[in-house]
Amino acid sequence: MTLRILATGGTFDKHYDEINGKLSFTDSHLPEVLQRARLTVPVALDICMLMDSLDMDDSHRQTVLQACSQATEKAIVIIHGTDTMRETAEVLGAAGLDKTIVFTGAMIPYEIANSDAFFNLGFACAAAQLLPPGVHVAMNGKVFPWNDVQKNRAAGVFVHK
Amino acid sequence: MTLRILATGGTFDKHYDEINGKLSFTDSHLPEVLQRARLTVPVALDICMLMDSLDMDDSHRQTVLQACSQATEKAIVIIHGTDTMRETAEVLGAAGLDKTIVFTGAMIPYEIANSDAFFNLGFACAAAQLLPPGVHVAMNGKVFPWNDVQKNRAAGVFVHK
Amino acid sequence: MTLRILATGGTFDKHYDEINGKLSFTDSHLPEVLQRARLTVPVALDICMLMDSLDMDDSHRQTVLQACSQATEKAIVIIHGTDTMRETAEVLGAAGLDKTIVFTGAMIPYEIANSDAFFNLGFACAAAQLLPPGVHVAMNGKVFPWNDVQKNRAAGVFVHK
Amino acid sequence: MTLRILATGGTFDKHYDEINGKLSFTDSHLPEVLQRARLTVPVALDICMLMDSLDMDDSHRQTVLQACSQATEKAIVIIHGTDTMRETAEVLGAAGLDKTIVFTGAMIPYEIANSDAFFNLGFACAAAQLLPPGVHVAMNGKVFPWNDVQKNRAAGVFVHK
Repeated sequence: MTLRILATGGTFDKHYDEINGKLSFTDSHLPEVLQRARLTVPVALDICMLMDSLDMDDSHRQTVLQACSQATEKAIVIIHGTDTMRETAEVLGAAGLDKTIVFTGAMIPYEIANSDAFFNLGFACAAAQLLPPGVHVAMNGKVFPWNDVQKNRAAGVFVHK
Repeated sequence: MTLRILATGGTFDKHYDEINGKLSFTDSHLPEVLQRARLTVPVALDICMLMDSLDMDDSHRQTVLQACSQATEKAIVIIHGTDTMRETAEVLGAAGLDKTIVFTGAMIPYEIANSDAFFNLGFACAAAQLLPPGVHVAMNGKVFPWNDVQKNRAAGVFVHK
Repeated sequence: MTLRILATGGTFDKHYDEINGKLSFTDSHLPEVLQRARLTVPVALDICMLMDSLDMDDSHRQTVLQACSQATEKAIVIIHGTDTMRETAEVLGAAGLDKTIVFTGAMIPYEIANSDAFFNLGFACAAAQLLPPGVHVAMNGKVFPWNDVQKNRAAGVFVHK
Repeated sequence: MTLRILATGGTFDKHYDEINGKLSFTDSHLPEVLQRARLTVPVALDICMLMDSLDMDDSHRQTVLQACSQATEKAIVIIHGTDTMRETAEVLGAAGLDKTIVFTGAMIPYEIANSDAFFNLGFACAAAQLLPPGVHVAMNGKVFPWNDVQKNRAAGVFVHK
């Protein structure tokens, strides 16, 4: 079974730009991150887009849907910003693809101390291989169905609706 | 569903002792690691032992079996040294407990650069919640059944027998 | 000889706030940083303020001057944002205190991968002990006098005027 | 002023070998470390040897002496294991070269959490530029003359004799 990993940006992949002093996107950390994970399961990495999920509109979500639809793999992990993870999951859930799609992300960028990114990716890589077809959100060590999840922004955690 | 995490030591939890210049065990990193993972799934942490798995004998494996047997949780992650992970998995597999038990560990200690520990723990936490009862080894982004796994020591990866 | 370390914030001490997704200030990293440095030279740490140096005005610079003036130590390291480090150094330089004052900071926050913060602090701690009285800027492995230094913002390095 | 940095190994440069589970030497971290320090002072890096200082004998010390003697730079930082740093400093001190030579090292390898390596290097880079000619040991935020320093092994710190 090959695993597809689809990067869309989000907090996970934000990078500190030392010239302007802001967090933004340059290259994805995922090639380095996947090496560090020492995976022997075959992985196809697709850097689909690198953006803050608050800046996503429906055209971006259609691009993500199309990327999943065209993927030949049955197991897909999507790295996504947490702020609109639910919205993109809803677009994919409604499409009813016959694939196991697992969204994950991070509360702290991969390159910043105390980041949850690497744990979450590990969790999602297992979930994508073990869950039945459907669209899921995997955050905080839990699996949520796409139509029963929301982010509690004040607490910074994902919960059932 | 509560998740039990059982620490036994292994490379995952090794610590550099700056006085004698050696890697050994003092406290487990797991309390800090679990905080960093921002889990909302309830977790019961059991620091069962902290040792190099090459130093384990059958009495240690019986202690691990007993800890799993007495645990009230149905989902258990065991952090274990990679060198004899298979041997302990065989003892637990043969016991036929009605629980989902997932072994994981690390090729590089959690506190050393480029460690796979945090990814592996995330992977195992998902696997323990999603796999059917039985004993499994989760390493290199793959799930192996306890009776079909071995470590290729020259390559540093887990493979089927 | 006791060393005074005066924190004013700056990039060095910025912290990623996972709830609002921004870099800001909460607690200084310096207590942890100084422990990590394993200093046996006596150190007096003063968290004078925690702010972006672009937000400093003359009243803040007078506060820094006053803190240096009142300090009983002859060797002072000031952690400062790089954007207006020169301006604060000029205020202190013009005051002509009979102390060795060394400004330093960071291009990348201490808690972010690839940060120069810890190196710069080490460099400044030596410079403050070894330079004659006066006000100096220590960045990029170089010592600059307060009246002959500027930040090349496009390149992200300090240079002579 | 060009700075020469002479690597000899020591704890600073130890690397965890994930195949045999031991700390040993492969490549020096120094090229990456110096990039991270964002130095604009010219630096000449010489990976002279990579070894545990407990394994050094007089021939190794003569090699270090020769490297310093032949260097065209007047300011030299030597990265050295802490266990016999004093012995090598004595060989160089007795030679009376007309150069500023500063020894430093680390209690925890650069690649391991909580390492003092990067701070110590920064400290030594300033000391080598600011001290008069002679041989010095720079550890724990302090400068020691070569003939008045010893490592307190039980405490893991450098002290006067």
